[in-house]
Amino acid sequence: MYFKQDKIQYLGASSKEPFAFKYYNADELVAGKPMSEHLKFAMSYWHTLTAMGVDPFGMETMFRPWDDTTDAMEQAKARVYAGFEFMEKLGLRYFCFHDKDIAPLGKTITETNANLDVIVDIIEAEMKRTGIKLLWGTTNAFAHPRFMHGAATSPNADVFAYAAAQVKKAMEITKRLGGEGYVFWGGREGYETLLNTDMKREQNHLAAFLQMAANYADEIGFDGGLFIEPKPKEPTKHQYDFDAATVVGFLKTYNLDGRFKLNLETNHATLAGHTFHHEIQVAIQHGLLGSIDINYGDVLLGWDTDQFPTNIYDAVLTMYELLKLGGLPQGGLNFDAKVRRGSFTEEDLLLAYIAGMDTYAKGLKVAARLLEDGVLEQFIQERYASYDQGIGAKIEAGTTNLNELADYVVAHEGELSNQSGRQEWLEATLNQYIFETK
Amino acid sequence: MYFKQDKIQYLGASSKEPFAFKYYNADELVAGKPMSEHLKFAMSYWHTLTAMGVDPFGMETMFRPWDDTTDAMEQAKARVYAGFEFMEKLGLRYFCFHDKDIAPLGKTITETNANLDVIVDIIEAEMKRTGIKLLWGTTNAFAHPRFMHGAATSPNADVFAYAAAQVKKAMEITKRLGGEGYVFWGGREGYETLLNTDMKREQNHLAAFLQMAANYADEIGFDGGLFIEPKPKEPTKHQYDFDAATVVGFLKTYNLDGRFKLNLETNHATLAGHTFHHEIQVAIQHGLLGSIDINYGDVLLGWDTDQFPTNIYDAVLTMYELLKLGGLPQGGLNFDAKVRRGSFTEEDLLLAYIAGMDTYAKGLKVAARLLEDGVLEQFIQERYASYDQGIGAKIEAGTTNLNELADYVVAHEGELSNQSGRQEWLEATLNQYIFETK
Amino acid sequence: MYFKQDKIQYLGASSKEPFAFKYYNADELVAGKPMSEHLKFAMSYWHTLTAMGVDPFGMETMFRPWDDTTDAMEQAKARVYAGFEFMEKLGLRYFCFHDKDIAPLGKTITETNANLDVIVDIIEAEMKRTGIKLLWGTTNAFAHPRFMHGAATSPNADVFAYAAAQVKKAMEITKRLGGEGYVFWGGREGYETLLNTDMKREQNHLAAFLQMAANYADEIGFDGGLFIEPKPKEPTKHQYDFDAATVVGFLKTYNLDGRFKLNLETNHATLAGHTFHHEIQVAIQHGLLGSIDINYGDVLLGWDTDQFPTNIYDAVLTMYELLKLGGLPQGGLNFDAKVRRGSFTEEDLLLAYIAGMDTYAKGLKVAARLLEDGVLEQFIQERYASYDQGIGAKIEAGTTNLNELADYVVAHEGELSNQSGRQEWLEATLNQYIFETK
Amino acid sequence: MYFKQDKIQYLGASSKEPFAFKYYNADELVAGKPMSEHLKFAMSYWHTLTAMGVDPFGMETMFRPWDDTTDAMEQAKARVYAGFEFMEKLGLRYFCFHDKDIAPLGKTITETNANLDVIVDIIEAEMKRTGIKLLWGTTNAFAHPRFMHGAATSPNADVFAYAAAQVKKAMEITKRLGGEGYVFWGGREGYETLLNTDMKREQNHLAAFLQMAANYADEIGFDGGLFIEPKPKEPTKHQYDFDAATVVGFLKTYNLDGRFKLNLETNHATLAGHTFHHEIQVAIQHGLLGSIDINYGDVLLGWDTDQFPTNIYDAVLTMYELLKLGGLPQGGLNFDAKVRRGSFTEEDLLLAYIAGMDTYAKGLKVAARLLEDGVLEQFIQERYASYDQGIGAKIEAGTTNLNELADYVVAHEGELSNQSGRQEWLEATLNQYIFETK
Repeated sequence: MYFKQDKIQYLGASSKEPFAFKYYNADELVAGKPMSEHLKFAMSYWHTLTAMGVDPFGMETMFRPWDDTTDAMEQAKARVYAGFEFMEKLGLRYFCFHDKDIAPLGKTITETNANLDVIVDIIEAEMKRTGIKLLWGTTNAFAHPRFMHGAATSPNADVFAYAAAQVKKAMEITKRLGGEGYVFWGGREGYETLLNTDMKREQNHLAAFLQMAANYADEIGFDGGLFIEPKPKEPTKHQYDFDAATVVGFLKTYNLDGRFKLNLETNHATLAGHTFHHEIQVAIQHGLLGSIDINYGDVLLGWDTDQFPTNIYDAVLTMYELLKLGGLPQGGLNFDAKVRRGSFTEEDLLLAYIAGMDTYAKGLKVAARLLEDGVLEQFIQERYASYDQGIGAKIEAGTTNLNELADYVVAHEGELSNQSGRQEWLEATLNQYIFETK
Repeated sequence: MYFKQDKIQYLGASSKEPFAFKYYNADELVAGKPMSEHLKFAMSYWHTLTAMGVDPFGMETMFRPWDDTTDAMEQAKARVYAGFEFMEKLGLRYFCFHDKDIAPLGKTITETNANLDVIVDIIEAEMKRTGIKLLWGTTNAFAHPRFMHGAATSPNADVFAYAAAQVKKAMEITKRLGGEGYVFWGGREGYETLLNTDMKREQNHLAAFLQMAANYADEIGFDGGLFIEPKPKEPTKHQYDFDAATVVGFLKTYNLDGRFKLNLETNHATLAGHTFHHEIQVAIQHGLLGSIDINYGDVLLGWDTDQFPTNIYDAVLTMYELLKLGGLPQGGLNFDAKVRRGSFTEEDLLLAYIAGMDTYAKGLKVAARLLEDGVLEQFIQERYASYDQGIGAKIEAGTTNLNELADYVVAHEGELSNQSGRQEWLEATLNQYIFETK
Repeated sequence: MYFKQDKIQYLGASSKEPFAFKYYNADELVAGKPMSEHLKFAMSYWHTLTAMGVDPFGMETMFRPWDDTTDAMEQAKARVYAGFEFMEKLGLRYFCFHDKDIAPLGKTITETNANLDVIVDIIEAEMKRTGIKLLWGTTNAFAHPRFMHGAATSPNADVFAYAAAQVKKAMEITKRLGGEGYVFWGGREGYETLLNTDMKREQNHLAAFLQMAANYADEIGFDGGLFIEPKPKEPTKHQYDFDAATVVGFLKTYNLDGRFKLNLETNHATLAGHTFHHEIQVAIQHGLLGSIDINYGDVLLGWDTDQFPTNIYDAVLTMYELLKLGGLPQGGLNFDAKVRRGSFTEEDLLLAYIAGMDTYAKGLKVAARLLEDGVLEQFIQERYASYDQGIGAKIEAGTTNLNELADYVVAHEGELSNQSGRQEWLEATLNQYIFETK
Repeated sequence: MYFKQDKIQYLGASSKEPFAFKYYNADELVAGKPMSEHLKFAMSYWHTLTAMGVDPFGMETMFRPWDDTTDAMEQAKARVYAGFEFMEKLGLRYFCFHDKDIAPLGKTITETNANLDVIVDIIEAEMKRTGIKLLWGTTNAFAHPRFMHGAATSPNADVFAYAAAQVKKAMEITKRLGGEGYVFWGGREGYETLLNTDMKREQNHLAAFLQMAANYADEIGFDGGLFIEPKPKEPTKHQYDFDAATVVGFLKTYNLDGRFKLNLETNHATLAGHTFHHEIQVAIQHGLLGSIDINYGDVLLGWDTDQFPTNIYDAVLTMYELLKLGGLPQGGLNFDAKVRRGSFTEEDLLLAYIAGMDTYAKGLKVAARLLEDGVLEQFIQERYASYDQGIGAKIEAGTTNLNELADYVVAHEGELSNQSGRQEWLEATLNQYIFETK
């Protein structure tokens, strides 16, 4: 047992107990479904079990009890048990992992894969024991030095091949474990300087890579979601999957939008200059929202801070979109968040997840009321009413043209009248829903 | 009567009435004082009465009923009446103005000053009639083309003189109207390029200017606060009053910190890369917090958006610091905020102020509970307890040195132990106070 | 005659004469063509003739001799003559305009269009007299209050119609004047807050608008380029044409990429978080580079500073890409740049254009040598050589798969070897070409 | 011998040899002094000898021949020899180090200090052998987990003591090796969240720490410069030494400005929202410029990229200020720059330093010509001429007041006239000097 605390209980909003949920009440019905179904929270294996608090200027601060061995395989096994204990104690029903998170690299890829097989057996047993599921798997094709110039976009074809071999194995594992999805994050798929880069050729390679991955999914019968995770920069100067709109364009250019969707992350949105709400709407508008990484990025800092999501505005607006969408069939809410380097104790891990889960539970309840009352929806519907009939309807139907419109303007000279956008009132209304939702 | 609505009433948190306060209840006691005393809200004359919705790419959208005249003096008079009606209807007890806001420029400074005198008579009468007070006055020494290269920092001494003459008059008016403070915002006090700038000479001039203004305040017996308002950039590439810390250094360099304090603005803080909480703490730490401009800046945009303050986190943390400080004797909370260009109706003005006042009222109540429970204070006090005794106390007392400290380290080798910073738990606690405060 | 200076001469790199070209020598052959053909510089009508130095905090500073009348039509005529004198004196062979730049708004659209016709007659005569051509025309559908919520993306169908009517007229003028292209900049095509916005519906409307414009171009036989100009934000919080990649995705989504290309701007690139070089490559890679707005944005400021382009690195890399491409058949280099507010004299207009033209002339010469020597091209070609044969060639041909690649990795275990990206040497080489090109 | 290349030679601007200087010619006289005296280049021990290409998402890419041992002390010794070979081959006359760079940590501070002594003996011998000098030493009080919450500003007094003990030792070493200065970079001296922070108490501690360090310098007779290095953020959310102006204010608040000066870094300037030119001028204006870290930060990225300085504009303007100042008696130009992660070979280290040295050599030559011709100086002097006499001179002398200035304005009504700031012409002139300097 790695965590001293017992299973975290819901004690309600007035509780002062740090190790308790104040808002997340798994079985409570919201909009007709239990909270736990709306909130398919997932533990991120990497930030939770293998991260040690290193930052660009600092060494490890987190020395976990499950890492108390020098044998890499024993350590990997201990992490599995720690992870499932952690999920059970928090009532988390899903997890996500990179291949590199769960088992140590071997001297050869064959050895690495053998290591993976050993650990996957244990994970599978723990999943069976607990009923916890795999939200998605992925490949770490960015940390190893071989990926210094990219993986699928490396100028070195041998590196492309290596990344492909990794995806093959990781996708097999994901299928075996019943994963709902498989994620591609292109941490090194971009460039450091255009002076040495053939951007088009690299993007062609990336598309070829994804096509092969999709083919392999078909081949092995993996019908989970294939998700691309946009991020604009860091570690590379420019990443090709810059933001949702860029990936939409990429997928359409290479005819990949039939098989791939997006895994969006809050902090990546703000690094690209967007609100998370924006990114989610872009994905939904193209029918391409796959899954979500919830966290928070300090908007005054220029790197991925991956903080636990405690901003209520993000939580409300995200859950609002998910409620409207009817949920994510193959996706969930992955905590791609890490405790601060100074929050180095095991208690902090629990407290941080509680903070995030409570924030999203509150967000869900607020969003449900907002949607039930239809306050935003009604405002928006009325705002665009001029397109529901007359010249507006013809515009939408594509049955008018510049000549007719010019005539229309002349005929209606002086009648044009705009309505207020009421932004301040809408913001106040959102606040009131946040404050008054019980 | 320019506003159709009656006086805005407090109808409580469950009200659906747009033109009502849900949280701001002027006479309700919080921490032993009526809300209205904690929240010395001020109307900004410029954003409320004279702004018309122009932006760098767009013309006026706001055509106010009080501007329905071509006679500049009649317009100025109408604005006074509109402003006092507006303040009365909202229960605002203070206002702030630039000289340029209240009366039209004349052909000569003599004529301009005469215009001011006419309008100030009317303002004075309205103040008497309503009991509304002046929070602070200021000079607009940035809009006129003569200030293209600066006012006090212009390379042209005639421009310096002009700005000085304006301050003289505006300070006289501020004194006459019983203003609590006088603000200096150096919109053009900075540079566009260092290739043509003598920065040191310009800063010397700025200091000389401020010294003369302080001398004049003494001369005329104006004992209100003199406040410098930091902003990093916009309209100039670099403004000398970049942020609170920069102004602290400037005041100390020129021995002006005995007479001048700071007027801080939320949006200016974020433009400088700081949270507003940070800027407030910097000012308080140096005993230099004078007054506050509340608004909100879109942190994903790089200019001063001056939105109405509806972010609850800012409101809570600002009020938290003010409660700890015991309030601002010569300052208040000025709404340096403008309705969005598309919120162009008079109703939007009311709705926007209601949004901001409610947000800060809620923030006050949350802050009062936070402080009453001492949850943050206690955490911080315990966190630094090692400085309350032993070697820590010697460090604070200045009675130790590197030799002793090095010996101490050797003597205590292996004993050093850090505690978690508990950031995630603190953020969750803040959320709980926000959600649970009634 | 509005400018005291005579026609600007090329006096060579050692000249100290401010009103002379040091690098731009129109007839000098570079890479087999005269400089003037490589550098299709265009005067921006708005920044040059109608802008007056207003900024968000300041009034007009520029009072031009051609504006010395109170009659709006006389003023518009004078501006035409001033503009052509200006272009002749600088040897500029092209210009660009918005409808709103060239003629005053009337009380009705009919009157406005009549005003335009009068002025277009004069422009046409001046074009004939001088041989100066129209690079592109465009519509200003962002400044007037009717566009407060958007033009093609306004929630008000009447506003959509108005913008359509304007495009009709402006496109007719552009065709009449032999314009090479027509530009769409969606300054208001975006949103201020998602709380009141139906983003998908708005983008559908935008696509419908562009389709109608393309249809109308066909109808009237305008076969010039149709160019969309990306910009991420300002004046709106979010503009739908965020950057090149976003517009590529948009065009593909709505099947508009067969008719529309991009007009890229240096400052818009950096506001979106990209280098200009990046944006140009993105457009070229999709065969969608139409035209270019050259200027410079202060990368430490968060708004469109539209400075004259004096950064040599931008100039070299832009001209490098254009040389590789063989030029822009329907595009050019438009100076979408404005003199600083403090550079308010007519002399500054000339000096600023000279600065920009000289920088790009120098950039062209450096780029030509770089390309002639093939130093970057050769480095890049060698860097990707592994894709020219073997497994790399199979990857590019799409004739391999994950199984084969995984086998390949096992078979070649231990052989993988990366080469240095040599960024620092490449940067030094670029510098050397800049310093040593005569 | 760790580097295959021979001593790097100056081969002149037309050389195509990568491993040669094109502009840096150590003995060439510029403005009356050899280049090498103007350009006191220093090798940064950490980026050059101990860094391995790790980034937040990636492992080591750089496996240096001098690291080819598992014995930490042998490795440390090899690094000394590698470093001196490197400096000799490049003709670098200075180096800089952190304590942690040069010797491995022991189990106790006593052991660590003993390790340092062994290595310092070797360094001293190499310095004697080669004539290479120490520019400055410093302490790494940020990487070890004990500094997770700060060093001098840790809430834990034991951590303060530890940092103090380290400074004691590092300062002794610096004195022993004849270092010209000693640097304080407060990587952890700041906060992650104000929710758990007593900012004022922390800054008091920081001041106490610096005072003790200054006292100890006196005690041991170290009369080198004591330099604080500003940086706004990263790794902490907010660092107290945010920028030059902030540190100026801090030093004045605590009366430390008599003993401490600034060590400025290019990339830190841009992270704080300033040009490097600005930061240098701020320091000079207060007589507080101590030393300089030259590098380049990608202005489109939000973290410290520490690239080699190849931007000619930075180099020219930096050298321009240093020439005006007459140089830095106790400071130099430290290459606080790292090769890109993909530039992982030893050749890249040489090429990167060559790139940086050549850029600054070119910058020096351009700056010398600029200063010799006085083109900027003369423009600026004339621009402020109105303060050399009349009312301007009275302003500067402090012998006027608001009354007199107001009278002056009335008396001179209508005479005020501004001159153009000529920014575009100045930028073009700067370009011409860059292009035409041989």
